[in-house]
Amino acid sequence: MEQGHEIFHQDELENMRTERLERVEIAKGTIITYCHDKIKVPNGHICEYDFIKHQGAAAILPVLDDGRLLLVRQYRNALDRFTLEIPAGGLDGPDEPTMDAAVRELEEETGYTSDKVSFLISTYPTVAYGNEKIDIYLAEELKKGERRLDEDEFINVEAWSMEDISELIFAGKLQDSKTIAAVMAYSYKKRT
Amino acid sequence: MEQGHEIFHQDELENMRTERLERVEIAKGTIITYCHDKIKVPNGHICEYDFIKHQGAAAILPVLDDGRLLLVRQYRNALDRFTLEIPAGGLDGPDEPTMDAAVRELEEETGYTSDKVSFLISTYPTVAYGNEKIDIYLAEELKKGERRLDEDEFINVEAWSMEDISELIFAGKLQDSKTIAAVMAYSYKKRT
Repeated sequence: MEQGHEIFHQDELENMRTERLERVEIAKGTIITYCHDKIKVPNGHICEYDFIKHQGAAAILPVLDDGRLLLVRQYRNALDRFTLEIPAGGLDGPDEPTMDAAVRELEEETGYTSDKVSFLISTYPTVAYGNEKIDIYLAEELKKGERRLDEDEFINVEAWSMEDISELIFAGKLQDSKTIAAVMAYSYKKRT
Repeated sequence: MEQGHEIFHQDELENMRTERLERVEIAKGTIITYCHDKIKVPNGHICEYDFIKHQGAAAILPVLDDGRLLLVRQYRNALDRFTLEIPAGGLDGPDEPTMDAAVRELEEETGYTSDKVSFLISTYPTVAYGNEKIDIYLAEELKKGERRLDEDEFINVEAWSMEDISELIFAGKLQDSKTIAAVMAYSYKKRT
């Protein structure tokens, strides 16, 4: 199962490994550290790669008893527009269990707590140049409570049907990677 | 349809917008540029945000006539391990149409060409701190040809059934965001 049916030129994995000769920290940011890596690729060439160090994040897909999903809407500076996403946030520290972080973000951003939290999928958004990992959980049996936003957070909470979210996704209007992966994976899991 | 059913505290969107006061380029990398942004959040506080500028990328989910999907396996320096992903790559320039880039990567990395390429989904992997956008296409009616890897690229090509890929995803073993989003979205689309 770990190995699919191979086709085309199949190298030995050992011959395809790159080797990192050096990692230089260029600049520290608020949530990431930017580095330059010096990499020896299998043909012996030396290449310069970008590397973004990130301590990890967690996200959660909250499902109401009527089947609708809770999404948060907020302005994203990096895109210069509002996005619709599942609740998510960075870990408090590198050792915080991602399930704890996911449950914390659920409560802070939506006010809901959940009696049934389970692992859904684990994702790396930027395998080409960063080590950020987002573990995504599923929250069911939700109970409404009070939300506790950070004072610098401005977030709306909306309930959406699977059909309406999917329509947005396939129209190219909902584009957040973790949200697409989570919603589509949940739909697959429910069916199988 | 654009607006779901709102719940909880619902601010006017105008009151939730952040304002960028300054963007300073800190360092240029091979495929990204690292910046510090000075942001005024709606309560008047000034915050420092990371921003990673990226010119965009394209990916493609190739489906063989027997229903199996083509994935590429390669060593990823950022994760220090091999990954299994759909074919993908950066745009040749900011104006390259993403469909052209997707078709190019399909041929370069797998050797296949396709007579039927269609838009699948559009994704932003890092809405919190970067503007990278990956448009993902579906390639059907594949024809086998010669692949043309860059000399510094070392990639295996493997054909996988949807069932086996899904098993890897839900076991947390296939973790690339764009690949999970694409595979799960394709499965949803095929069904509905």
